[in-house]
Amino acid sequence: VLPSIFTFIFVGSQAVENTAMDNVATERRAEESHRQDSADLLIFIMLLTLTILTIWLFKHRRFRFLHETGLAMIYGLLVGVILRFGVHVPRNTNNVTMSCSVNASPATLLVNVSGRFYEYTLKGEVSTVKGPEVQDDEMLRKVTFDPEVFFNILLPPIIFYAGYSLKRRHFFRNLGSILAYAFMGTVISCFVIGLVMYGCVSLMKTVGQLGGDFFFTDCLLFGAIVSATDPITVLAIFNELKVDVDLYALMFGESVLNDAVAIVLSSSIGAYQPAGDNSHTFDATALIKSFGVFLGVFSGSFALGVATGVMTFTKLRDFPLLETALFFLMSWSTFLLAEACEMTGVVAVLFCGMTQAHYTYNNLSPDSQNRTKQLFELLNFLAENFIFSYMGLTLFTFQSHVFNPMFIIGSFISIFLGRAANIYPLSFLLNLGRKNKIGSNFQHVMMFAGLRGAMTFALSIRDTATYARRMMFSTTLLIVFLTVWVCGVSPDNRSLTSTAGRSTVNALDGIQRRDTEHERAWPFRMWYNFDHTYLKPLLTHSGPPLTATLPACCGHLAHCLTSPQAYENEGRLHNDDSDDLVLNDGNATMYEDVTVSTDALGTRTANPKHSRMPAFGEHELVVRGTCLVMQLDDPTMSTPPPATSPPPFSDPFVDPFSEPRRNRL
Amino acid sequence: VLPSIFTFIFVGSQAVENTAMDNVATERRAEESHRQDSADLLIFIMLLTLTILTIWLFKHRRFRFLHETGLAMIYGLLVGVILRFGVHVPRNTNNVTMSCSVNASPATLLVNVSGRFYEYTLKGEVSTVKGPEVQDDEMLRKVTFDPEVFFNILLPPIIFYAGYSLKRRHFFRNLGSILAYAFMGTVISCFVIGLVMYGCVSLMKTVGQLGGDFFFTDCLLFGAIVSATDPITVLAIFNELKVDVDLYALMFGESVLNDAVAIVLSSSIGAYQPAGDNSHTFDATALIKSFGVFLGVFSGSFALGVATGVMTFTKLRDFPLLETALFFLMSWSTFLLAEACEMTGVVAVLFCGMTQAHYTYNNLSPDSQNRTKQLFELLNFLAENFIFSYMGLTLFTFQSHVFNPMFIIGSFISIFLGRAANIYPLSFLLNLGRKNKIGSNFQHVMMFAGLRGAMTFALSIRDTATYARRMMFSTTLLIVFLTVWVCGVSPDNRSLTSTAGRSTVNALDGIQRRDTEHERAWPFRMWYNFDHTYLKPLLTHSGPPLTATLPACCGHLAHCLTSPQAYENEGRLHNDDSDDLVLNDGNATMYEDVTVSTDALGTRTANPKHSRMPAFGEHELVVRGTCLVMQLDDPTMSTPPPATSPPPFSDPFVDPFSEPRRNRL
Repeated sequence: VLPSIFTFIFVGSQAVENTAMDNVATERRAEESHRQDSADLLIFIMLLTLTILTIWLFKHRRFRFLHETGLAMIYGLLVGVILRFGVHVPRNTNNVTMSCSVNASPATLLVNVSGRFYEYTLKGEVSTVKGPEVQDDEMLRKVTFDPEVFFNILLPPIIFYAGYSLKRRHFFRNLGSILAYAFMGTVISCFVIGLVMYGCVSLMKTVGQLGGDFFFTDCLLFGAIVSATDPITVLAIFNELKVDVDLYALMFGESVLNDAVAIVLSSSIGAYQPAGDNSHTFDATALIKSFGVFLGVFSGSFALGVATGVMTFTKLRDFPLLETALFFLMSWSTFLLAEACEMTGVVAVLFCGMTQAHYTYNNLSPDSQNRTKQLFELLNFLAENFIFSYMGLTLFTFQSHVFNPMFIIGSFISIFLGRAANIYPLSFLLNLGRKNKIGSNFQHVMMFAGLRGAMTFALSIRDTATYARRMMFSTTLLIVFLTVWVCGVSPDNRSLTSTAGRSTVNALDGIQRRDTEHERAWPFRMWYNFDHTYLKPLLTHSGPPLTATLPACCGHLAHCLTSPQAYENEGRLHNDDSDDLVLNDGNATMYEDVTVSTDALGTRTANPKHSRMPAFGEHELVVRGTCLVMQLDDPTMSTPPPATSPPPFSDPFVDPFSEPRRNRL
Repeated sequence: VLPSIFTFIFVGSQAVENTAMDNVATERRAEESHRQDSADLLIFIMLLTLTILTIWLFKHRRFRFLHETGLAMIYGLLVGVILRFGVHVPRNTNNVTMSCSVNASPATLLVNVSGRFYEYTLKGEVSTVKGPEVQDDEMLRKVTFDPEVFFNILLPPIIFYAGYSLKRRHFFRNLGSILAYAFMGTVISCFVIGLVMYGCVSLMKTVGQLGGDFFFTDCLLFGAIVSATDPITVLAIFNELKVDVDLYALMFGESVLNDAVAIVLSSSIGAYQPAGDNSHTFDATALIKSFGVFLGVFSGSFALGVATGVMTFTKLRDFPLLETALFFLMSWSTFLLAEACEMTGVVAVLFCGMTQAHYTYNNLSPDSQNRTKQLFELLNFLAENFIFSYMGLTLFTFQSHVFNPMFIIGSFISIFLGRAANIYPLSFLLNLGRKNKIGSNFQHVMMFAGLRGAMTFALSIRDTATYARRMMFSTTLLIVFLTVWVCGVSPDNRSLTSTAGRSTVNALDGIQRRDTEHERAWPFRMWYNFDHTYLKPLLTHSGPPLTATLPACCGHLAHCLTSPQAYENEGRLHNDDSDDLVLNDGNATMYEDVTVSTDALGTRTANPKHSRMPAFGEHELVVRGTCLVMQLDDPTMSTPPPATSPPPFSDPFVDPFSEPRRNRL
């Protein structure tokens, strides 16, 4: 598809000589456009401000009947209604429609206007269903963001934060189950939804309800998009509701990885459908190609994220600003690097966040640990609320909605079935191998906590060019609304956790206490030993020195690779690690009450790592009772026990989002 | 200039029916473009990373022969050279040139390609001097940012930070002088430079060196652009060099306001030149109109910034994340609101920052004070280094440079003359009224510390459409390079401060100690009393309660407007204020060593406010001896003296960037 030479013939007006006048006119127009852009962005900022104030009011008055993400959506809806029906800015008359019958639309147009060249960039295709004349409301058109903004600006901080704040200890303990749910579960869900929807679409075609093409690959794509349960919403809502840590870890771990799988799956399905034809004819090579793309992109993104996450800097401790800036830039460059290499940036950023929290975080100065934590928390908060209010807004301002009752009903049924086909069979299979079984109540919670959120939205808004995509987008929007509102409304959830969740906690508690040491699967123990003995000492200065862990023949190499601080930390280390399982002593700790401990001597500050990630501004940290080894935090226990081997019961996961210990100096 | 109906006739290829193929091709192209964008952005991130690592190396090894902003520039230069001469990506063949002879370029084009509508947006004018065929290197074209990015994304955080970190106590003490330098000085400098340059340009025209039009208004515009001395560079370099606080306050205050004046001045000059004709003919009405625009825009932006800065929230203290997010959004909305109202966002953001630091900052919880401080510090750091490395890059990648030796030499002479005409006569006049004279050494320092930086660059890159603008841009770039490198190189500066600066300190010290109470001008005292008695109690809860300061008849009103916390603070307040002039006790305090004090009871933490803003990672805070009332920080002095009236010698300015007091618990 090569471009050709165009001739652009002007019809109907005289040429103007006064270039200065033209110049001024162009400038005025650019100014006007800039003014309008500012005003539009201001609407969103005001929306966010309003949301924040209402969140505060809700928190302050302890209203809990609606979650904040649902709230942001409602405000978005209201503003959307106002923009749609209240304000009408006629379309800028400077828009010009040209007709030509060429084979492709070039990415850049150079228009020669009386000897001056103007550059035009392709913004995208305009809806062809209703024609361009529909988009006559300038305000609605302007308020619509480039979908790529979601993928490239708003999603990365959210996903990074999810990875960075993942409770790695509980995550790794349930790693096998999480991987099973995330990979197999998502693929199962995708295909179940795809098949059910294909049935639904075929039925619609028979009834004559279908207004355009809807291929099998579109159904599969819909399945992939809608299978992404949301870490954002799970994080936000579960944080509020204070559920059991293991339930939280399973759910959260699943939904985080889930997203990665769904993204890669949806792009692989795109590779399966290169020519856009309907795929009644089963094509084995294309399927294998898709599978190859899936594996390649996923493992590539994983490797890239881990590689940049592992790249670590230990000498910048004295300059927290430089350290924080570098940390931020490295995370961002992971995203960009993955995108530039045709991998998936969001997936890379997720694993980068997890790796950084596990290794790099330990090398940061306490000030930088605090700074990065707060920075990513803020970015996540703003991006999340922006996406949810935009979701609300878009229900009324998006101009090419295709709502089809049959499709909507079908999709709700298919989602339900897909989720059930994911959770129950997999739980049954996993329970065959697991020592601590996943209870049936636990399974019901997972079944109904499968919220769809920002990722589903971002995936569905990415391409709304065809009839099928538009219908998928509109339906997805409704699914997100419903799941967020239903699961975000507190009374429902509270009863859910109090009946299902709490009893599960008790059931699990009994099992877990019985066999503490043997409960872990051998891959976990192997990995843990390898990590503790080689990786942590190599990459951080929080492990034991490599000289102690490597065999004697590698003594010289070990000495080179160990940082001087690791020796200092040698004695303190065991104490730190055993802190992992120290129970939060139940004092009502305020978030503002945290004392950043001094680090004048370069010592590492011990943190109690068991407390769960605090919701912002949360005053009381409710202590949950699902701890393996209960051990009271005794301030007098300051002399570390001598240790050479990794402590058997404890975990090496320093949680960046746990409360720093109150300074006892 | 109304648009007309175009016909877009395609010549030379057959129409294609397969829309699916076309769809896939479009998608591929979009993907390719996205990949390229990511790679380009990655270059800048890598550049920043490299700069950070080198800054660390310099700080670590205590190299001081080059300042970090100069460093960022050098890296930018190197990458620019590589991009220019090392990499050659041929221009994307999808770009299509069309010719038409119409009167205006529309903002949006809708191109009908075989029944599908594609939207194109105007990106800007392409250089007409050399024609579009010059821009055949895709890489260079891509790496060039939209100039508006500087004004709308990179400049606001820098300017806000300048306002937020302004040492308000020293600023208000020197307010009269600062205003004189900023307003009168900048206007003088602008006209002197404009006149000298007009002479230079006339000479060039006679010699035949001028390749295009250069009007008197262009000269004035150049004067306005180049008169903006830079708070960024001043802040960065003076912070490193540890100069006298009063010199710092004068210089910094001048350069901050200076920028605001230069922006508004340059846009007013645009209003003076509506038709682009050469203004040999002096037009009185246009001059008055320009003056009106100047006053209107400046006062409007000022009012807007102060209004949103004063809008304050006192009840969110319990939720630092919400508080920080709200604070950030309010600052941003100030910028957007000003731009939407056709004011100057940068100016509004400056005054918003100053007002917020003075009022809103007092109402924030200590955690939020810390968070906002660190957030804006990081944003400022990243934006600043990005601008400076982009400056370096653009010397080689900008494709329409116009370097003219005569113009360059003329501009250097004119800048020197303009700065001299600003500083010396004004200092002479000010000294007639000032009790503590501005010494001649002090004047020399101000004369030579007039660096040009990010603001000058952003103003000059904003419009490079004409020959005159392009020559101005290239020359400005050289001016920025030279001033940053000359003034940023430490040996020069060190001698400067040690000869001129230090002796000034001594000279001023003597004067200042003689008359401590009477040194302040009456407008300052009036404002101070008004602020302390009415504004602070109304807007913050750090002042005395309004019930104590308002007359008895307003008792009910006063009670309504006073926050409950103000009563609690009543006793503590005087102690806090007197802390303002407590000298830093000279201990070497580390930045990481700062303890965020507990605020469990909602008490306000006392900070020693005299220490100057710490450069990040700076280990030793050198104590400077220009304190009005020396008073040792005595930890035993904990009982506050009873106070009802504002303390006579102390200032109410809580500096957000001063070191928090070391917690003695």
